[in-house]
Amino acid sequence: MKRDRKRIVIALGGNAIKLPRQKGTYEEQRTSIQAASLHILEFIKRGFEVVITHGNGPQVGNLLVQQEAAASQLPPQPMDICNAMTQGQLGYVLQQALMNELKSLNLNFNVVTMITQVLVDRKDPAFAHPGKPVGPFYDRRTKEKLESERGYKIKQVLPGGETPFRRVVPSPDPIRILEVSALKKVVDAGMIAIAAGGGGVPVVLNERGEFEGIEGVIDKDLAGEKLAEAVAADFFVILTDVPRVKLGFGTPEEREVERLDIRQAKKYLQEGQFLAGSMAPKVLACIRFIEYGGEEAIITSLDRAWLALQNQEGTHIVP
Amino acid sequence: MKRDRKRIVIALGGNAIKLPRQKGTYEEQRTSIQAASLHILEFIKRGFEVVITHGNGPQVGNLLVQQEAAASQLPPQPMDICNAMTQGQLGYVLQQALMNELKSLNLNFNVVTMITQVLVDRKDPAFAHPGKPVGPFYDRRTKEKLESERGYKIKQVLPGGETPFRRVVPSPDPIRILEVSALKKVVDAGMIAIAAGGGGVPVVLNERGEFEGIEGVIDKDLAGEKLAEAVAADFFVILTDVPRVKLGFGTPEEREVERLDIRQAKKYLQEGQFLAGSMAPKVLACIRFIEYGGEEAIITSLDRAWLALQNQEGTHIVP
Repeated sequence: MKRDRKRIVIALGGNAIKLPRQKGTYEEQRTSIQAASLHILEFIKRGFEVVITHGNGPQVGNLLVQQEAAASQLPPQPMDICNAMTQGQLGYVLQQALMNELKSLNLNFNVVTMITQVLVDRKDPAFAHPGKPVGPFYDRRTKEKLESERGYKIKQVLPGGETPFRRVVPSPDPIRILEVSALKKVVDAGMIAIAAGGGGVPVVLNERGEFEGIEGVIDKDLAGEKLAEAVAADFFVILTDVPRVKLGFGTPEEREVERLDIRQAKKYLQEGQFLAGSMAPKVLACIRFIEYGGEEAIITSLDRAWLALQNQEGTHIVP
Repeated sequence: MKRDRKRIVIALGGNAIKLPRQKGTYEEQRTSIQAASLHILEFIKRGFEVVITHGNGPQVGNLLVQQEAAASQLPPQPMDICNAMTQGQLGYVLQQALMNELKSLNLNFNVVTMITQVLVDRKDPAFAHPGKPVGPFYDRRTKEKLESERGYKIKQVLPGGETPFRRVVPSPDPIRILEVSALKKVVDAGMIAIAAGGGGVPVVLNERGEFEGIEGVIDKDLAGEKLAEAVAADFFVILTDVPRVKLGFGTPEEREVERLDIRQAKKYLQEGQFLAGSMAPKVLACIRFIEYGGEEAIITSLDRAWLALQNQEGTHIVP
């Protein structure tokens, strides 16, 4: 489809929502999200069609701690529910911040937060090897109690200390966004959509052919890429805490990279130049977006986002 | 606007989502919501355009207990955030249940959960007289601690016992749904929308002319009525735990009522024939819908919903 306006999917990192050393109070969260929305506004003001996704790490972490603390009174909710809760939570704050910014500029756009489910494969190897740490840290006694009572998989994630254990959950690869058709209609109608927050709710097709939530956390950049496919975006921008991707990270040859074609990006990814669980999934998401047919994928920091789109900042991944 | 298909807003009571004596586990919640979605499906199958809202009492109550239990580690989130979280939580489960039912019948409809804000007036008398009990029950010591540390308003809600105290929050009257334009577009495009769950997030316009969340809980039937106005519904159906409204409730003259015109409904409401905080706001919501220009408002139970629309059950409030 030919469109007058370019369409962009922006993936906001957790750091855009909760600054380091914050405790996660409402006021802190609101202030960080208001700051983020100002950067997003740059794209809207310049005529881009904007779709937003975001991380939820700190928020879902807090929710798991709170559920654990009350576990003797109330059954904790599974991870799919926790994800949906944070989609509501952060979507609301972001939606309100954007609505206020748009209102102050007399820009008349609808902002919509849509609860999003993401299909994953029950046979994804991630389910046999859960590796994503979530929730509070435990001592050995609690670890053993939770393993036997709730069937949690708990691993040692710190070398020592009193509470070196933490629950790990699967991080399956996203296949597709279930709400693809609705999302497309909403974005085609000119609305600004917030979707697939925290990677979206992971769901599988069960034996009865029904969609069903499953324990796990989908990487928010890989889910964001599926979102970019769902709305047929031209650009996919991942906002993280560094202005550019580095090659040879942590070695004497460390250097920032401005531009990678898809062949180079795949080669460096395969060589292990990017940190697993950090820059590697971001680069992988960009590669997938270009392979899907996207025009350009960009990794940069929140405050450089607009400069990056003008090719003055960021790491650009291109066909 | 003339439409081929009739449009209906269905307000699901808390009892449709959590049955009495359930503990609120995920499985219980999922089963109840699946049962509710089968009743909603009747309307979709028959060609109605359906918009759904729902209560969140048990869910937000649990969330408040969980946040309280971890308060020494993490700051509890305010009520506007808690509402948004339950909109995500219940919207997800309901959306998934409906998608599965539609899929099994080869019906091709989009189901969308939209996080909804509802404007209230900062000068609403409810803010001076918070009266809606929420969250856990407290003993006197905890009551005094929370009043001084957090500024909660806490009242005695039980005649005796060790924990007769409970936090009360304002229940302001809804003015309008902020996302009215987006919602209208989504419903006009043929999508099934889930919105304004738990009465929606209460927001006010602050001194800077910005929307801002405020501590409170909006009655879900009164918010549902604003939703019905927002989408220009023909019918507004409130599903609760009784098949019909009763006049003279609890008196020897108690009797079920099948049909009230708006004049009768207003008279009985004014006479105090309906229980405050229970049937009274439901009748008020129906009166408002008819005054707005709606064709018919119905109060009935979940399992009688379809019969009620055919005039074989329920209490009908008409012009």
